[in-house]
Amino acid sequence: MEPGGDAARLGLGPAAQALPPQLLLLPLLPLLLGRGLRVAAAASSSSGAAAEDSSAMEELATEKEAEESHRQDSVSLLTFILLLTLTILTIWLFKHRRVRFLHETGLAMIYGLIVGVILRYGTPATSGHDKSLSCTQEDRAFSTLLVNVSGKFFEYTLKGEISPGKINSVEQNDMLRKVTFDPEVFFNILLPPIIFHAGYSLKKRHFFRNLGSILAYAFLGTAVSCFIIGNLMYGVVKLMKIVGQLSDKFYYTDCLFFGAIISATDPVTVLAIFNELHADVDLYALLFGESVLNDAVAIVLSSSIVAYQPAGLNTHAFDAAAFFKSVGIFLGIFSGSFTMGAVTGVMSSLTGADVTKFTKLHCFPLLETALFFLMSWSTFLLAEACGFTGVVAVLFCGITQAHYTYNNLSVESRSRTKQLFEVLHFLAENFIFSYMGLALFTFQKHVFSPIFIIGAFVAIFLGRAAHIYPLSFFLNLGRRHKIGWNFQHMMMFSGLRGAMAFALAIRDTASYARQMMFTTTLLIVFFTVWIVGGGTTPMLSWLNIRVGIEEPFEEDQNEHRWQYFRVGVDPDQDPPPNNDSFQVLQGDGPDSTGGNRTKQESAWLFRLWYSFDHNYLKPILTHSGPPLTTTLPAWCGLLARCLTSPQVYDNQEPLREEDSDFILTEGDLTLTYGDSTVTANGSSGSHTASMSLEGSRRTKSSSEEVLDRDLGMGDQKVSSRGTRLVFPLEDNA
Amino acid sequence: MEPGGDAARLGLGPAAQALPPQLLLLPLLPLLLGRGLRVAAAASSSSGAAAEDSSAMEELATEKEAEESHRQDSVSLLTFILLLTLTILTIWLFKHRRVRFLHETGLAMIYGLIVGVILRYGTPATSGHDKSLSCTQEDRAFSTLLVNVSGKFFEYTLKGEISPGKINSVEQNDMLRKVTFDPEVFFNILLPPIIFHAGYSLKKRHFFRNLGSILAYAFLGTAVSCFIIGNLMYGVVKLMKIVGQLSDKFYYTDCLFFGAIISATDPVTVLAIFNELHADVDLYALLFGESVLNDAVAIVLSSSIVAYQPAGLNTHAFDAAAFFKSVGIFLGIFSGSFTMGAVTGVMSSLTGADVTKFTKLHCFPLLETALFFLMSWSTFLLAEACGFTGVVAVLFCGITQAHYTYNNLSVESRSRTKQLFEVLHFLAENFIFSYMGLALFTFQKHVFSPIFIIGAFVAIFLGRAAHIYPLSFFLNLGRRHKIGWNFQHMMMFSGLRGAMAFALAIRDTASYARQMMFTTTLLIVFFTVWIVGGGTTPMLSWLNIRVGIEEPFEEDQNEHRWQYFRVGVDPDQDPPPNNDSFQVLQGDGPDSTGGNRTKQESAWLFRLWYSFDHNYLKPILTHSGPPLTTTLPAWCGLLARCLTSPQVYDNQEPLREEDSDFILTEGDLTLTYGDSTVTANGSSGSHTASMSLEGSRRTKSSSEEVLDRDLGMGDQKVSSRGTRLVFPLEDNA
Repeated sequence: MEPGGDAARLGLGPAAQALPPQLLLLPLLPLLLGRGLRVAAAASSSSGAAAEDSSAMEELATEKEAEESHRQDSVSLLTFILLLTLTILTIWLFKHRRVRFLHETGLAMIYGLIVGVILRYGTPATSGHDKSLSCTQEDRAFSTLLVNVSGKFFEYTLKGEISPGKINSVEQNDMLRKVTFDPEVFFNILLPPIIFHAGYSLKKRHFFRNLGSILAYAFLGTAVSCFIIGNLMYGVVKLMKIVGQLSDKFYYTDCLFFGAIISATDPVTVLAIFNELHADVDLYALLFGESVLNDAVAIVLSSSIVAYQPAGLNTHAFDAAAFFKSVGIFLGIFSGSFTMGAVTGVMSSLTGADVTKFTKLHCFPLLETALFFLMSWSTFLLAEACGFTGVVAVLFCGITQAHYTYNNLSVESRSRTKQLFEVLHFLAENFIFSYMGLALFTFQKHVFSPIFIIGAFVAIFLGRAAHIYPLSFFLNLGRRHKIGWNFQHMMMFSGLRGAMAFALAIRDTASYARQMMFTTTLLIVFFTVWIVGGGTTPMLSWLNIRVGIEEPFEEDQNEHRWQYFRVGVDPDQDPPPNNDSFQVLQGDGPDSTGGNRTKQESAWLFRLWYSFDHNYLKPILTHSGPPLTTTLPAWCGLLARCLTSPQVYDNQEPLREEDSDFILTEGDLTLTYGDSTVTANGSSGSHTASMSLEGSRRTKSSSEEVLDRDLGMGDQKVSSRGTRLVFPLEDNA
Repeated sequence: MEPGGDAARLGLGPAAQALPPQLLLLPLLPLLLGRGLRVAAAASSSSGAAAEDSSAMEELATEKEAEESHRQDSVSLLTFILLLTLTILTIWLFKHRRVRFLHETGLAMIYGLIVGVILRYGTPATSGHDKSLSCTQEDRAFSTLLVNVSGKFFEYTLKGEISPGKINSVEQNDMLRKVTFDPEVFFNILLPPIIFHAGYSLKKRHFFRNLGSILAYAFLGTAVSCFIIGNLMYGVVKLMKIVGQLSDKFYYTDCLFFGAIISATDPVTVLAIFNELHADVDLYALLFGESVLNDAVAIVLSSSIVAYQPAGLNTHAFDAAAFFKSVGIFLGIFSGSFTMGAVTGVMSSLTGADVTKFTKLHCFPLLETALFFLMSWSTFLLAEACGFTGVVAVLFCGITQAHYTYNNLSVESRSRTKQLFEVLHFLAENFIFSYMGLALFTFQKHVFSPIFIIGAFVAIFLGRAAHIYPLSFFLNLGRRHKIGWNFQHMMMFSGLRGAMAFALAIRDTASYARQMMFTTTLLIVFFTVWIVGGGTTPMLSWLNIRVGIEEPFEEDQNEHRWQYFRVGVDPDQDPPPNNDSFQVLQGDGPDSTGGNRTKQESAWLFRLWYSFDHNYLKPILTHSGPPLTTTLPAWCGLLARCLTSPQVYDNQEPLREEDSDFILTEGDLTLTYGDSTVTANGSSGSHTASMSLEGSRRTKSSSEEVLDRDLGMGDQKVSSRGTRLVFPLEDNA
């Protein structure tokens, strides 16, 4: 038995931390607090009736201490809440004055920084209250420890391993410790709503139009970026060793890991400005889609790199078997999480559909919303239970929910779910960013290495350049609608790092290398969010990217005015004058040379999926699309009749394909149904723009155009309810 | 050092449990999971690069175990989510088929029971994986423990004290343990949204009209009930001791404690049926108001009883000093929590008002909603930080928010906040009830004592009878509008016990007495929710209580039809025929003998408060009410001008007092403003019912009537937008 001295309750980087089961429950509910101590202490004093011994004074002391600790918990959480409140109030003012150079996330970081400075230098550095005892015995750590203290038994749970060097050296500041959260909180609580919201609010039309490019940027791009950054950083680390700046170990896998975590872009500031200025929607789709998907890639990539464990003693040499195992892990986790998310999304749609399709019980939006919430949450849990990545599963669940389940919800539930996840996403995001600001001063294991930091900035710049430009070049070979130079520059510029990089970096800060990475990541996030975020508006005008595209249009219920707008024109062209719609009608350069060509040019795989989705999945899972009785072969008649929603029959016109999308727009279903005249002619639509001047009749032909319409959720204005007469620009990827 | 054997990870009734700070964060976000272990283990294996020793195999084993535990966590939480999902789906069906004999909470309990049986008897009883070591040293338990395991240091945190007898005797079933939540979860996470929602959705008109009676039932009634149940149970305990059925200690304070926890009524099932059948609104207000407030009283009462600690060794004799200290604690905590809640509510209203009143920034409902949520949460934290009761503070915060802050919100934010808390409340409530069902079989320390249980049933029956009938008698002496016998019987019948009693009972189950109480409480909740809840509809018709009162009315935007309805007529009278509104106009018995009498009959204290509220608080805190410049004395002119919202001036008619309430109804503000003609004549309003047949002009006189209008939130139909011509029935309490 050896005396242990003061225990360093580090709070970060636990080696094996068991979250208690009650943790799992918490997100259900909004108000919580570690009231445990005070009340439990009170309870113990009451149950002390059973003990009735002389230890009353002792108990009283424990009670007092417990109460004190509980109050500190409350105060520290209050700090964060007041921080968020302050941020919200300031944003309000900013939005009022149309301030664009500083985004709310940047603001949250600034307030976090200020509070961090106050906590760091304004509060006395007290040594921790926690005396500790230390036992040397056994050969491994158990998850539960039973301690006999003068006849009473106390139960302890394992919090984590701490490095021996820290035990006596760290002077604990109670307040700093209190405001330090377990890093897993970010992954299990804060990221899921952010990621789910991203998936749920993907602008579907533009997303699918640019799907090939987005996938290329997200997968190839992230891999290239990770590899290049990893190698460059390995060079930097070698340099540091030569110069003598590196005192601890830093392996090649660590460098690759850094490459993976820092490759997750999060252009939240840029996208907010895009949204506000109505910048080019295709660029928006490319950036947003890339950032959403590369988060998923980066998570899985980083865990694959962590899982790279060569056999034998030399654990950092190249080992082909281990390498392929890592690749296998990457593919397994990614596809597993993807499948899990998609399947749960479809399941939830089916469950919802079974109830709503056949009972027509649209009158209980509360139940619908609760069900939606629970199903989305169960995706996360299911993926975790199966060993996949919950965050990734939640992302794909969000996309699937938006595609199918959303259709089955009542109008009120749609806005409810949208608003619920919007609030959660908003709070989570700003919380993470204000925590980042705080962490710069309150995190106690920073390793500032100027060479590493400068190297990292150069590396992320080069890493991004090395995939944006070459990939764009190759994509442009296939794309009919080229990604212009200004778009490429803008994408290059928008390589901000945010919540995901931070969450991945803070997850493990046990080793020296990881601490250095964490500090560097934090600085990169600060720099990119403030500088790059602030420079977005000037950059947009400098790169001559059009803003103020009036994509959404007002739909007047009485006059049936349909406004037309051009999206996706070659950005290198000068923006045409305001009579866009007329130009579109006349045919506008290469974009409108005919439906057949459009059809032939689109990727066959994608078309195949789309028609399968439209003809079979949507009718089964939602109320929309053609009845299965018309799309399935005749011998499936009975099955088809069972699966098809009565509502589809109610609509009576099996070929009115835009139902599926128009059912998405809120509030004006009947209007939309009533006013559209469909001239569907199967596969080879001839785009005779028979637009009458009343503008209330639309001509639709191929399913690609249906696809092109927007879901109309995620932003306040419902965009593109009318017909896009510019032909869709599929990727040939 | 003595070997400790297998540790009993009891999970319940910890003597001093420190909730980790990350717990505090969780409610912010919707998806979470104790993913800690798996990832942290992965991280440790990566950071093991730094260690590079031979302990790889050992680490791998820990990792595997950690991963396993993490999966079990996910599975157990999934169980609950699927339970809730199942409940929701079944409720859906029930609502569709208008099944009324079983409420959703009863259903949740049944499903919980079924899953509990499966878990209990269907899963193998494995002994826990957690080996433990035990150290005997020092004289007190520390909150952190540092253990040196073959050179590595592991950190442990205190989970709680366990009774020595349990250490070797409990055979642990992993699954049962996993589904057992920390009891503080209920208090800190599940109850706050339920209680806040109750406060936020109090039907204000009827609540305030019956305020005196409600306060009497809640305070006096709960105290009487607690005392009577406590004494009766003490008799039962004595009897059990004589019969030899009681093996452990059971003190008088324990009996009183049981009286306190079981006095918290929760007629959720009854109220749901009332709502659905449109039963008498005054009865609804009495029941709902009583149940909301007596929850608060019961919490504070139970902690006061726990705090009763007589001096000296004989800790269970009567001690006047300790008794008065307990009374002081009761008053202190209650008034403190009340003040805290009210002040934070007012603060949030002011904060919101400052922003929204003067900048007119109603266009960011997301920000408003987030702010509202954060302010409500901070109430809880603030109260906890100050040593008050967060749940009670949240209740009064909810009431205040509904009264003031709600007025400052934009129309969209009103529905957003309402919906957000509705979902949270719904999920929390059903979770608690399904957990109750589960706990009957999975809780491992049940003490079923038939005598105690039967005694408890008799005691709660007598305890409720002993306050409902006498209090009603005394109240009827003062009330002009008597509480009829059928109302009294219905209130007697509606004494269901629910979430609050359960949460209070499960909070501490360390001693034998407490375990017996917990088991008994559980059975009482089951019985009352199923039997009493199911018998509500027959009881209503048996007691001849009118249902189907068409309180809400449709307001047609074009025709301005105003429908009138009678509320609060003496229920002993037969319901008059359908031409109610005409009868009201003609004067209806004692109810309409003139404004002056009504005014004189109302309690002066209440009137004083109301006019203060209306003339000063509402104008300062909201956009409504008369401008301060007209209500404050002349010498306060400058101050008044600063504090008054520009919107009040915009409205131009300083005496149009119903603005304050009409601003509450959603969607038709302009209509309401435009159509009301106000004939305000100060203090002595003469109710000349100058109702024109168009029905669009209303005559208003005294502020009491303004008060009487409904907030219009909390249920789907906005009730009482028009004029109530039946004069208000204040209590003379």
